[in-house]
Amino acid sequence: MPVTLNTSEPDFEARFADMLAAKREDSTDVNDAVAAIIADVRKRGDAALCDLTSRFDRLDLTPDRLRFSPEEIAAQVAHVSAPDRAALTLAAERIRAYHERQMPEDAIWTDPQGATLGWRWTPVSAAGLYVPGGQAAYPSSVLMNAIPARVAGVDRLVICVPTPGGHLNPLVLLAAQLSGVTEIYRIGGAQAIAAMAFGTDTIAPVDKITGPGNAYVAAAKRQVFGRVGIDMIAGPSEVLVIAEGDQHPDWLALDLLAQAEHDADAQSILITTDPALGHAVAGAVDRILPSLPRARIAGASWRDYGTIIIVRDLEEAAALSNRIAPEHLELCVDDPEALAAKCVHAGAIFLGPHTPEAVGDYISGPNHVLPTARSARFSSGLSVLDFLKRTTMARLTPGALNAVGHAAMRLAAAEGLQAHGESIRARLDLLNERPPE
Amino acid sequence: MPVTLNTSEPDFEARFADMLAAKREDSTDVNDAVAAIIADVRKRGDAALCDLTSRFDRLDLTPDRLRFSPEEIAAQVAHVSAPDRAALTLAAERIRAYHERQMPEDAIWTDPQGATLGWRWTPVSAAGLYVPGGQAAYPSSVLMNAIPARVAGVDRLVICVPTPGGHLNPLVLLAAQLSGVTEIYRIGGAQAIAAMAFGTDTIAPVDKITGPGNAYVAAAKRQVFGRVGIDMIAGPSEVLVIAEGDQHPDWLALDLLAQAEHDADAQSILITTDPALGHAVAGAVDRILPSLPRARIAGASWRDYGTIIIVRDLEEAAALSNRIAPEHLELCVDDPEALAAKCVHAGAIFLGPHTPEAVGDYISGPNHVLPTARSARFSSGLSVLDFLKRTTMARLTPGALNAVGHAAMRLAAAEGLQAHGESIRARLDLLNERPPE
Repeated sequence: MPVTLNTSEPDFEARFADMLAAKREDSTDVNDAVAAIIADVRKRGDAALCDLTSRFDRLDLTPDRLRFSPEEIAAQVAHVSAPDRAALTLAAERIRAYHERQMPEDAIWTDPQGATLGWRWTPVSAAGLYVPGGQAAYPSSVLMNAIPARVAGVDRLVICVPTPGGHLNPLVLLAAQLSGVTEIYRIGGAQAIAAMAFGTDTIAPVDKITGPGNAYVAAAKRQVFGRVGIDMIAGPSEVLVIAEGDQHPDWLALDLLAQAEHDADAQSILITTDPALGHAVAGAVDRILPSLPRARIAGASWRDYGTIIIVRDLEEAAALSNRIAPEHLELCVDDPEALAAKCVHAGAIFLGPHTPEAVGDYISGPNHVLPTARSARFSSGLSVLDFLKRTTMARLTPGALNAVGHAAMRLAAAEGLQAHGESIRARLDLLNERPPE
Repeated sequence: MPVTLNTSEPDFEARFADMLAAKREDSTDVNDAVAAIIADVRKRGDAALCDLTSRFDRLDLTPDRLRFSPEEIAAQVAHVSAPDRAALTLAAERIRAYHERQMPEDAIWTDPQGATLGWRWTPVSAAGLYVPGGQAAYPSSVLMNAIPARVAGVDRLVICVPTPGGHLNPLVLLAAQLSGVTEIYRIGGAQAIAAMAFGTDTIAPVDKITGPGNAYVAAAKRQVFGRVGIDMIAGPSEVLVIAEGDQHPDWLALDLLAQAEHDADAQSILITTDPALGHAVAGAVDRILPSLPRARIAGASWRDYGTIIIVRDLEEAAALSNRIAPEHLELCVDDPEALAAKCVHAGAIFLGPHTPEAVGDYISGPNHVLPTARSARFSSGLSVLDFLKRTTMARLTPGALNAVGHAAMRLAAAEGLQAHGESIRARLDLLNERPPE
């Protein structure tokens, strides 16, 4: 039975605050080990990659075998069944269509003083996508990371994926192919992040690294940040379902369990105005849970972090949702748009009873890489913007410099930066001898 | 005399690569000291802030004196001269006008399958701006950080600024007032970052922290990242000027010196097609340098990091510029737009001879907080986007779920996530009993 809170009870605030503050992740300190691996890859390059892959992935490689050949990829991809291929292709198309709409526009205008101003977006030249190996090698994550990069216009798109014992899900390779990935290397861990950040003889460095990974990968991404760009460091996943009383308990229970089956550290929360519904959902979870192949993981998550909160009305639900700032927010209520307007901190919102969170993991189109652990208060899911950068542009005419330069000179003087002021004054002096054309 | 390189010389590539790899910043490790300060502020709150401010800023405070009162602000601001106020007001207006154009649009559409998709931008609830004290308390930086936050719609905007010995430039307070800052605290260092990230009895926590600072501030921002959002960690500043032969050597020399006077670690680079211009600019720098109040700083920067590169043509200049990925790029050439199109990695581009970089620091409108140390390869200057986050939205009709749900179920099965598939199947089963309205 999960924790059940009720906003009408006197200890609610304290218990809710405890829930918000609870840390759901072990933070093993692997920084020193990771720093040593990065230093080794910087120093010995491909040789270090081969040694580390032998050690961690039980796979003996030579530098010329680090990269998957086109023939290997084709042979693996041929194993994918037609229905799986069709499903992945539909997902890729829908994700691409959604992300194409995210492409920002350049701008350029001339203001009344004669200053032409604007900005221009350009893609990063090369991006590297980390894909975890084994159980967590999700083809859907390949699509979600690689497609926004390609839509942004990234030319060179690299994947590193560990293949413990040489094994890899062929759907991962198909997803890479469908997304336009140009190079795939069979390496993982901190050594893969180091190789993408600093380069080796075989692997040219990239400018941006994205993708999920274990504690070593996360620490390596933090350590190379600055040398290259990185996406967020994801924490355990969470879902918040807000439901009114007329919803199907089984549907809601399955949505909570879909989150819980990801990870024992995942969190599933139900907020409802109807105590009877809360009770029915808890019962449905207990009934369905034993039937799941991942019952052990889902059960641990639900037992340790599952929470049902009874509220007086949807106003209260929205206020609590904003404090939780959930990664995924499902609104199973009569007027989900009205409630969504009040829920201002969330990674992704799923509106209405026929939009289970699972469609967002695969097929609806928006990205499934989303801010976790309350970071939706200040950050966004992955998008094409993560693979673009903006250059601001300014061109002043002599007249525009004359109109605004004097103010800049005053401010430079106030900040004690004389050369700043002089660089403007020298130009204005000459202009005033020869009036601007 | 600075380093002079020439792309026609055989050792150019090696020397250029050395220049790119040179580290211009001492990286003193202050992580342990900063961790202790953060822990102290988390534990003792305002009492820790007062103790640390007494120790580091020689200023004895009580919790009720941490915040500037409206009366103090008014009294200080009254000292600002009318021309300084006019200059700062013009700068604020121009920066606001530029950033207002950056506001991104929400989107919502319905696809042929009946899925309504889109996204929505919302501001962070509260942002904290760090302003360094003493010499580096730049009013222009207050405008550049606070105005984008206000344009984004941030309600609560906090400044922390150390006031060593109680002293503060009144222009900083005026800039805060002009930008709509709501709270100003006289604290600095890692303790200010900790207070904004975790909150104390007096200072409510914020969601995003931006602004420059010393090594302690930078380390503190890194340590609180995740708890709150942060902007980039800025390195030493740099300018690259690309010039053809008909430019005024003095103008270019002043632009190089304007960068150099910021910091002994700053870097000024001139790339020119004309060796005679390179020689003339070097001479002009030597002639002007002794007259600058900050000659010692600018001289050290120019001596240690100043570089003049002679190239065969502007194609070569653009290729080198893309490898440097400069924070500031000034194009003093006949057709700056054509050259700008080839320079794809730069924080800000200044086109033509009447757009000295200094106008960008103060008055032209674009932000002066820009990516340093080659990070323009993958990141952008500060903008309203830094104070917004995007929530993706999806609403499926029963028909849309029927159209795409089967593919999602296949992918869930391929990833071994049964509850994901079941959450869709349960809905489809019911729909198939009762066909969708």
